[in-house]
Amino acid sequence: MNSTNRQSSYSAYSLEGETDMKERILDESLIGKILTAEEAAETIIDGMTVATSGFTPSGYPKAVPLALAKRVRNTQEKMEITLIAGASVGDELDGELSREGIIKRRIPYQTNESIRSKINRGEIQFIDQHLSHVAQNINYNFIDKIDVAIIEAIKITEEGNIIPSTSIGISPTIVDKAKNIIIEVNMSQPLELEGIHDIYTIKNPPFRKPIPIINCFDRIGSNYIPLNKEKISGIVITDIKDNVRPLAPVNDNNKIMAGILMEFLDFEIRKGRIPKELLPLQSGVGSVANAVLKGFLNSKYDNLQFYTEVIQDSILDLVEAGRVCCASGTAITPSPEKLKEILLSMKRYRDKIILRPQEISNHPEIIRRLGVIAMNTAIEVDIYGNVNSTNVLGGNMMNGIGGSGDFARNAYLSIFFTESIIKDAHISTIVPLVSHHDHTEHDVDVIITERGIADLRGLSPKERAKRIIENCAHPDYKDQLREYYNRASRRRGHIPILLNEAFSWHCRFESVGTMKNDTGGKEYELSSN
Amino acid sequence: MNSTNRQSSYSAYSLEGETDMKERILDESLIGKILTAEEAAETIIDGMTVATSGFTPSGYPKAVPLALAKRVRNTQEKMEITLIAGASVGDELDGELSREGIIKRRIPYQTNESIRSKINRGEIQFIDQHLSHVAQNINYNFIDKIDVAIIEAIKITEEGNIIPSTSIGISPTIVDKAKNIIIEVNMSQPLELEGIHDIYTIKNPPFRKPIPIINCFDRIGSNYIPLNKEKISGIVITDIKDNVRPLAPVNDNNKIMAGILMEFLDFEIRKGRIPKELLPLQSGVGSVANAVLKGFLNSKYDNLQFYTEVIQDSILDLVEAGRVCCASGTAITPSPEKLKEILLSMKRYRDKIILRPQEISNHPEIIRRLGVIAMNTAIEVDIYGNVNSTNVLGGNMMNGIGGSGDFARNAYLSIFFTESIIKDAHISTIVPLVSHHDHTEHDVDVIITERGIADLRGLSPKERAKRIIENCAHPDYKDQLREYYNRASRRRGHIPILLNEAFSWHCRFESVGTMKNDTGGKEYELSSN
Repeated sequence: MNSTNRQSSYSAYSLEGETDMKERILDESLIGKILTAEEAAETIIDGMTVATSGFTPSGYPKAVPLALAKRVRNTQEKMEITLIAGASVGDELDGELSREGIIKRRIPYQTNESIRSKINRGEIQFIDQHLSHVAQNINYNFIDKIDVAIIEAIKITEEGNIIPSTSIGISPTIVDKAKNIIIEVNMSQPLELEGIHDIYTIKNPPFRKPIPIINCFDRIGSNYIPLNKEKISGIVITDIKDNVRPLAPVNDNNKIMAGILMEFLDFEIRKGRIPKELLPLQSGVGSVANAVLKGFLNSKYDNLQFYTEVIQDSILDLVEAGRVCCASGTAITPSPEKLKEILLSMKRYRDKIILRPQEISNHPEIIRRLGVIAMNTAIEVDIYGNVNSTNVLGGNMMNGIGGSGDFARNAYLSIFFTESIIKDAHISTIVPLVSHHDHTEHDVDVIITERGIADLRGLSPKERAKRIIENCAHPDYKDQLREYYNRASRRRGHIPILLNEAFSWHCRFESVGTMKNDTGGKEYELSSN
Repeated sequence: MNSTNRQSSYSAYSLEGETDMKERILDESLIGKILTAEEAAETIIDGMTVATSGFTPSGYPKAVPLALAKRVRNTQEKMEITLIAGASVGDELDGELSREGIIKRRIPYQTNESIRSKINRGEIQFIDQHLSHVAQNINYNFIDKIDVAIIEAIKITEEGNIIPSTSIGISPTIVDKAKNIIIEVNMSQPLELEGIHDIYTIKNPPFRKPIPIINCFDRIGSNYIPLNKEKISGIVITDIKDNVRPLAPVNDNNKIMAGILMEFLDFEIRKGRIPKELLPLQSGVGSVANAVLKGFLNSKYDNLQFYTEVIQDSILDLVEAGRVCCASGTAITPSPEKLKEILLSMKRYRDKIILRPQEISNHPEIIRRLGVIAMNTAIEVDIYGNVNSTNVLGGNMMNGIGGSGDFARNAYLSIFFTESIIKDAHISTIVPLVSHHDHTEHDVDVIITERGIADLRGLSPKERAKRIIENCAHPDYKDQLREYYNRASRRRGHIPILLNEAFSWHCRFESVGTMKNDTGGKEYELSSN
């Protein structure tokens, strides 16, 4: 689709374009603000702090960053910006801009290979934050002033307000705080998304009030983002689709973990520790989480509630299967296949789905009040119950903590999933000590691997260690873990740890390519200490 | 004071005792439940889970545990219990019972030398929990059923309800959940405490509602703990005073840190990042925290609000100086000197002080809503901004995480204090990597030592490392830290870490008694990586 410039009314457009405009930009006074992506990109200059809509590869601006990257590629001009988005975004933004060296600082999360590699090479300073903290850090002026906000919208209302697209993220906050705003009206995003959003913002202390959500289906705000039209520096028309990513096929281990979860929930209900209708569920993003949620498709639960960050395929499948009473999140992030279905029939989903600002979807107040059952994925866990969600081998950033901390700390029950081994069994994900801590022993209730489940509630570190080793570790590493634990537990201390060996497994992997230690065929039994 | 047994009305007491009884136990039907401490202790048997009132050495039961310890000392019977209190308690409970081998498991915090040493010898299993989680873990049935609750009270009302004493902790929850209840009516606790308490309990999900506190002085509950009289298995009369502990004198480093804090707050106000009246303050427990708060005595702030856990001497001094508009906590814990003053003139303090259940004083919902400025003490911090609050040298338990996590994670601003060196400079509290993680890089905004302040907001790990080393480390260790950082930053990665050396400072201290590494007189400059 071509954008046309400096037209001041609908009638300046061709017949087809005029209909599109009338449906998408209802405030005719804004027609004159329409720019090409290239023109809008011109307003972004070296040294700026740019904040954008988007959360996962959903609802982020595409045309303007592509134009900006192209310009810099052509001019080779010096251009370094701080980029803030709600979470990760698609390749048109994180990928293109980082490959051109445009991103100098990035807050608070990413999943793109190009930006990740620059972060790990030290070329981009990455600030990894709890996703519920991002909007308030901006509101508290803890982050640089935002020069430009770029917001993807499906529509601008008659009153000049923004109807966002497939995610909300930090958009309401940055629309409020930014000096200038560029709006990308995306014609590929269905107008039926209107009504799915619930925009509620939080004042700064000392003026905060209780957030009035008491059920995950409660709507407490408006369906649009209020906008000061004076701040619009350009409106860009685009039709580039969300660059969503395929999910890995569900493997056998994922199925086993899903089965373990179902048995566990069943057991907890029988024990009277979870209500029989369950409680709202949260699930992390990605293939493992998606696979685990698929387990609910064949379960007995038919009135599921989700109070989560991202609504991905498995939740949409559950909605279709009539098993969901409400799915609240901050983004809809389908696989490419699912995206096609959704774009065709958004109405089917709209009644069950609520999108909220990430400050609300991830807010400790609501997560704790609703009693969310949190299910997240770990890179590695240790025998004390600490979890690493972010950095491989201590310092190599994967994606970021995301919302896992918001949910794990405040959940009714905090469950972490990981396969017990990876890399052809050369890495055990159960280690003596995690090489980076994101969730401490105080925040982890249950660990599930394909080998079994360790329920850590009410256990001391020594009891946790035994349970994790015996229930969750892979047989290839059990003896090695027992042997470590036995020696560690001979020392005085509350937590049995050998500081001079705690990372020896990671170091061994780095130097010889495996965590395996030849134990000389000796089998160890856990000491009773 | 002697307790008298099986009297069924006031008139059975001597004249003086009758007056006392009439003032303290207003429900005459309960007179028949009065037992000696020894008799009440008889109801506690091997294998039980016992939960008590108390938070810090305030408001915990004393007579019954002393009687229980004495009995076990005499009979040498086998007696192993799980002990749950709100937090730490006095020596009559944690000390006496642990020395007699009676405590087998302890939840969630302690500060007593006898129990600590048994925990570190592996004789007691200790479960270290966020203090805001304890009551809900009980309500969710995540912790063993409570056989007996022992509650210190100043009074039982006409309706048979409990007026607690100098702390609330988890009392409302355990009074509700325990099978049997023993009440210690403590004649040494002033009746003027009545009215200071605000008892509000939280339902389990899915029935939770917003907690209606929007100012730290809001009262939302009753001034008593409702009681099912059927569950009372005994009432014991005692007059043993809270075994409060003296505070260390304020040293020069504490004064310097207080000064740095004052300058920082001033700067933040000028920058528009904190309102000029400040926001509610939280302060950890102990001598450093107390000393830092003393800094407010000579400050310009005269309408201070505290939304904190423990109200200790410095807050009471500020109340006396007319500088406090409200102090909300779950315990009043004065030094022995201050205790005398308070017992004589509780009325002076009562209007300014509110005691709440720890589930409310430490609740993420309220801390985040009010925008609390959290000030806690660290055992050690690392160059990435992680904080160890619990375990010395990785595994030796000091006290526990307490409420530091509840506050640090949800605060408007999370500040940690530590002196830069201890043990005659043989330990640097700024280390390459903390030997135990309680607060991760995601939860720490500011670090203050007597050397200076590191404001970590919006910084990447590499930027944080440089700032912490340059601003907070002791000169004796700066070169050593720079040298480590420089080598670590040569590796690929988001976080510059050398896994094979990360704990070498701790190991060196363990083997040769100092963290100091002879750098051969060479001076290092920080690499620009």
